[in-house]
Amino acid sequence: MPISLPREPDFAKAGGLVPAIAQDADNGEVLMMAWMNPEAFAETLATGRAVYFSRSRGKLWRKGEESGHVQTVVSIFVDCDADCVLLKVRQEGAACHEGYRTCFFRQITPEETKIVGDRLVDPAEAYGKKP
Amino acid sequence: MPISLPREPDFAKAGGLVPAIAQDADNGEVLMMAWMNPEAFAETLATGRAVYFSRSRGKLWRKGEESGHVQTVVSIFVDCDADCVLLKVRQEGAACHEGYRTCFFRQITPEETKIVGDRLVDPAEAYGKKP
Repeated sequence: MPISLPREPDFAKAGGLVPAIAQDADNGEVLMMAWMNPEAFAETLATGRAVYFSRSRGKLWRKGEESGHVQTVVSIFVDCDADCVLLKVRQEGAACHEGYRTCFFRQITPEETKIVGDRLVDPAEAYGKKP
Repeated sequence: MPISLPREPDFAKAGGLVPAIAQDADNGEVLMMAWMNPEAFAETLATGRAVYFSRSRGKLWRKGEESGHVQTVVSIFVDCDADCVLLKVRQEGAACHEGYRTCFFRQITPEETKIVGDRLVDPAEAYGKKP
């Protein structure tokens, strides 16, 4: 069976939202996972800036619109089942709202859970009220 | 507020299943995204082999049990919201059931969708009936 070449993820199959993984295009670090609806995907593709759909706020989330920690998209991939997106990005500042470069800053081992990332910015400063 | 150090993802918050990203521990390639329930996570942590929960089959999916394309887990991370897992793995053979090294073998650009990966194995051979 030939491999299909979809122009976008299969949002309908996935219930309207697909997971989107953001990976540092330069060093390969996985930065975060968020969700996309068709509008978020289309805007990301068209503008070259990562746009997600915030499930908690119920609206488009233009990554970095508040913190300045934008993601410039280098390339976009869709997986074999067309229900997951991978973005390779150039990350400005910290991807994580906790101020870490990556959201995956905690490692779980059979013995313990430990913080393995360095905090780049103070979350209160990045997301607090601007003067 | 201090950073919490959970021993497992917050499955309850996520509705029972969390996305799990598998990344090549050596070259950083994102290989696939699948789902984990508490049993899949616990078995992965205990055995050092990636185990997911297959939503389509409704049961644990010990990656590679049919194809031999197992994932040996090098390290496990949980994201800031504790609702996504990142596994760094050593992948035997192809991660993708289509025979590609990674499931993200199709790139979407504003102009086209194209295959960018090389097929390592014939899916019919990997998943067909064994003699």
